[in-house]
Amino acid sequence: MKKIAVLLSGCGVFDGSEIYETVITLLAVERNGATYQCFAPAIDQLHVIDHTAGEATTEKRNVLVEAARLARGEIKPCAELNVNEFDALLIPGGFGAAKNFSDFAVNGQQAKVEPSVLEFCKAFASAKKPAGYMCIAPNLLPFVYGQGVRLTIGNDKETAQALEALGAVHVNCAVDDIVIDEPNNLVTTPAYMLATRINEAATGIEMLVAEVIRRCE
Amino acid sequence: MKKIAVLLSGCGVFDGSEIYETVITLLAVERNGATYQCFAPAIDQLHVIDHTAGEATTEKRNVLVEAARLARGEIKPCAELNVNEFDALLIPGGFGAAKNFSDFAVNGQQAKVEPSVLEFCKAFASAKKPAGYMCIAPNLLPFVYGQGVRLTIGNDKETAQALEALGAVHVNCAVDDIVIDEPNNLVTTPAYMLATRINEAATGIEMLVAEVIRRCE
Repeated sequence: MKKIAVLLSGCGVFDGSEIYETVITLLAVERNGATYQCFAPAIDQLHVIDHTAGEATTEKRNVLVEAARLARGEIKPCAELNVNEFDALLIPGGFGAAKNFSDFAVNGQQAKVEPSVLEFCKAFASAKKPAGYMCIAPNLLPFVYGQGVRLTIGNDKETAQALEALGAVHVNCAVDDIVIDEPNNLVTTPAYMLATRINEAATGIEMLVAEVIRRCE
Repeated sequence: MKKIAVLLSGCGVFDGSEIYETVITLLAVERNGATYQCFAPAIDQLHVIDHTAGEATTEKRNVLVEAARLARGEIKPCAELNVNEFDALLIPGGFGAAKNFSDFAVNGQQAKVEPSVLEFCKAFASAKKPAGYMCIAPNLLPFVYGQGVRLTIGNDKETAQALEALGAVHVNCAVDDIVIDEPNNLVTTPAYMLATRINEAATGIEMLVAEVIRRCE
């Protein structure tokens, strides 16, 4: 059975992993006959956002501890990855992918990626194993795959320009479609960069997961 | 388009709504051609559980504020329900349904239900609108529908006995099936009372949601 690593950035669209994207991903992994293990970096979140108000609170929360909610407790820190045990990588979006995995949400084209996250992603890239990045998670890709990486974050012009300044080739993409970077064995989809309803997000994510698992040797 | 109220108890299996059950429910609502609005009581959680360790912390969190994560911010307090605007009610499980909605997890057959939650559920019962309760959420049903309510929480003998002591008729049920109480227009399914994988939970929940929406006049 194929085994997929899923990297999470917390639990909640405004400060962590987008919850719907994550759960749709996990269900799609099983429905494509594969299994998964969740991981997260053991670092503090940049923000804790009150999701009723959309505003930052004074609380401190840890990415691994909050992401554990999305994994029913079955989660490991990034440092415990043995890439040989996995066939592919999937990364849902949510602001955590641009606030905790990197500081792209704050610093745009001056962004840096959190070291344990970068090492985690690069392990799959170096092994040429397939990977799927959703929503705003492709902000990591110029750092992981270098110049010329082909990706989508939907059609937001400002975000696309910041990624192109980092060396990416941005391709506009509809919410129910995917973009494939063939040399890098990499799939991206806009998800909640464009989705207005959960079923819209699900269509593209299910397509991405099926494509990534099809690519597992 | 049919509109479904979804009542949440926080965000995370050990102290709130079970996340997979909730997201599978919301997606199934849309895939059955209906729409939804999430609600939660504006009360403190009984516990905040570190989901990596499964142990209580000293933090305080609010049910409505945490449940907002599961609703991408689009959530209302229970008090804002106008039952005439809705065709049915769905309640996912998770320990929050037995720690925040009631104290069944702590007090068993001496349990009481939080007043705003009881009023919310009774509004649908009084209007004879269809309702679906998942996992441990059926602990509320003896209080909402009274003696003789027919339900399942899977096959856990001790939990079933506590519910029977409260006046329910418990029916053992497999994870991929539902139990219908015809006079009360009520559907229950075990979900994570029995599920060992997300796809197992999804099968029963998708059956429950389809049955509840079929019952909307």
